[in-house]
Amino acid sequence: MNIKITGTGSYIPANIEKNEDFHKNEFLNSDGSAINAPSEVIVKKFKAITGIDERRYAKSHLNTSDIASFAAEKAIENAKINREDLDYIIVAHNYGDVRHDSQQSDTVPSIASRVKHLLRIKSPKCVGYDLLFGCPGWVEGVIQANAFIKSGIAKKCLVIGAETLSRVIDPYDRDSMIYSDGAGAVVIESTDNEGGIIAHESATFSLDEAHFIYFGETNNQDSDDARRYIKMYGRKIYEFALTNVPLAMKSCLDKSGVNISEVKKILIHQANEKMDEAIVKRFYELHNLEMPEGIMPMSIGKLGNSSVATVPTLYNMILNGELDNQEINKGDVIIFASVGAGMNINAIVYKQ
Amino acid sequence: MNIKITGTGSYIPANIEKNEDFHKNEFLNSDGSAINAPSEVIVKKFKAITGIDERRYAKSHLNTSDIASFAAEKAIENAKINREDLDYIIVAHNYGDVRHDSQQSDTVPSIASRVKHLLRIKSPKCVGYDLLFGCPGWVEGVIQANAFIKSGIAKKCLVIGAETLSRVIDPYDRDSMIYSDGAGAVVIESTDNEGGIIAHESATFSLDEAHFIYFGETNNQDSDDARRYIKMYGRKIYEFALTNVPLAMKSCLDKSGVNISEVKKILIHQANEKMDEAIVKRFYELHNLEMPEGIMPMSIGKLGNSSVATVPTLYNMILNGELDNQEINKGDVIIFASVGAGMNINAIVYKQ
Repeated sequence: MNIKITGTGSYIPANIEKNEDFHKNEFLNSDGSAINAPSEVIVKKFKAITGIDERRYAKSHLNTSDIASFAAEKAIENAKINREDLDYIIVAHNYGDVRHDSQQSDTVPSIASRVKHLLRIKSPKCVGYDLLFGCPGWVEGVIQANAFIKSGIAKKCLVIGAETLSRVIDPYDRDSMIYSDGAGAVVIESTDNEGGIIAHESATFSLDEAHFIYFGETNNQDSDDARRYIKMYGRKIYEFALTNVPLAMKSCLDKSGVNISEVKKILIHQANEKMDEAIVKRFYELHNLEMPEGIMPMSIGKLGNSSVATVPTLYNMILNGELDNQEINKGDVIIFASVGAGMNINAIVYKQ
Repeated sequence: MNIKITGTGSYIPANIEKNEDFHKNEFLNSDGSAINAPSEVIVKKFKAITGIDERRYAKSHLNTSDIASFAAEKAIENAKINREDLDYIIVAHNYGDVRHDSQQSDTVPSIASRVKHLLRIKSPKCVGYDLLFGCPGWVEGVIQANAFIKSGIAKKCLVIGAETLSRVIDPYDRDSMIYSDGAGAVVIESTDNEGGIIAHESATFSLDEAHFIYFGETNNQDSDDARRYIKMYGRKIYEFALTNVPLAMKSCLDKSGVNISEVKKILIHQANEKMDEAIVKRFYELHNLEMPEGIMPMSIGKLGNSSVATVPTLYNMILNGELDNQEINKGDVIIFASVGAGMNINAIVYKQ
């Protein structure tokens, strides 16, 4: 028995927020002090580091659960399964439904229950739950689905990553330009076909790193805004990721027994182009190799960082031929890898 | 190999909120209309139906992650394990950390990462994630831990249920008297000892039932309070639970192969005394039996409904001899059962 992804889908929100749209922002340092540069210069520097040109925001009437259900519909259709046969709906997210006019996260009922409701699935045996694991939540959901199938309690699982980070960003914070909205979904099944999940690895670093990404106050200390926003210590995260992600990927590849020369693509969480390049470069250095050209498909330029939605969306885009000069073919070995709040890291070695 | 609970712990918050403390409240119907009775009468009627005399609220400086870590410390100590050997920390909750002075749920980093940080666990191989599944979240966490151990990816898991519902209640809503704060935790391990998890059952009813428990506005329609609070359709839930929970329990017991006469205790989620009695009574009626006296230990009178914390706290109290005339002994078969937002239902048949 193998455990394979048999269908994929994604939803890319309609509203395009370009870098120029941030020229009007007054960016401040985290201590509230002014940044000695006009917004245009800050935005340009941001683009040079992160590779982000534009990002997507969900329309105001849509919530995380809505866009999750759009991606899920496509994955179910693509997998050609009867939705009533699903044993699990696993939804990875971080903030639940945050209505555009609200600062409150809405997580009751779970996003999974809402998605199941929107998908009009009747069977009570289809169990829906939400998984919070930072940006690596979708990859972790795949690992959990794999465990459920292996242990005999499931045959078919729907794993979704969906997030509307545009609802939790501080306009005074440069980092707010990183974040994006999106949803990606896959159907995972036990199958007699070749390929599937070969190995996986997960880790939580929380002794010193738990609060590298956190919920904090606006950079505008003159404001009486008590609302909290997604915040991060970028430099610390960069150093942490560069040290630990390549090791986790290597550990996963070692477990898989696959030679690195067989790896065709690395689908890594898109948080920062320069950081991703440095991570994958170091991963190859650990094997005394140079990073092959085109090994790391990037979507960050046009889609930003949509957290849990990034990796499944990227995967779906490549399979559908929507990313220039990138393809994944039957039999190809690929690595899914992610890093994010927690701090959590995970990786999967997968054969298409 | 069996999969058993080897340690338990709970944290019962210090602040006691008595029914009399609600006499000052102005209760309104959900449509904002007045209730034609003084608060004293409403509170008395509430007590007659739910069995709740008092409930516990966490002190204002404590959050869900703090009380979760207190319960976890006790479970680890009770299990006599090295905390660095834990493979998973699974935290079931619904609202994350809601600071007493805030209306925002804080879920980044995950509560599991915060708990792991507070427990000073160093090993990155101990993976922490949050599970949102309504009140049945802790029981579902046990089912997930069971799957991870069965599938070979874990040997020791810490499963916590923690919640501070006192932070999301509408003072104008009678139902606000139901909710309580608390935390319960267990360590689950693979073992060669007899007993453990024999069978389990989970279900999500979301076609018509998804929004029976939801996040909604205050009953006080004259207020400009846009904040949302935990809300429920009590009558619908009662009918739903009475129909479906006994069937789920029976299905689980049938799977286990255990005869109902061997069941020594039923530890059911404490949401409403009358409802719980009706559920368990019907469960026995499905077997053409009368409900045995003392089969269903109750903690609701003193502890209210602390959501995911209720069942593990009840279990821990009985094992520690803290519940009058109730005990669980080695070899006893017990049933854990829960129902809540989603709407989710689950059950485990377990041999002590």
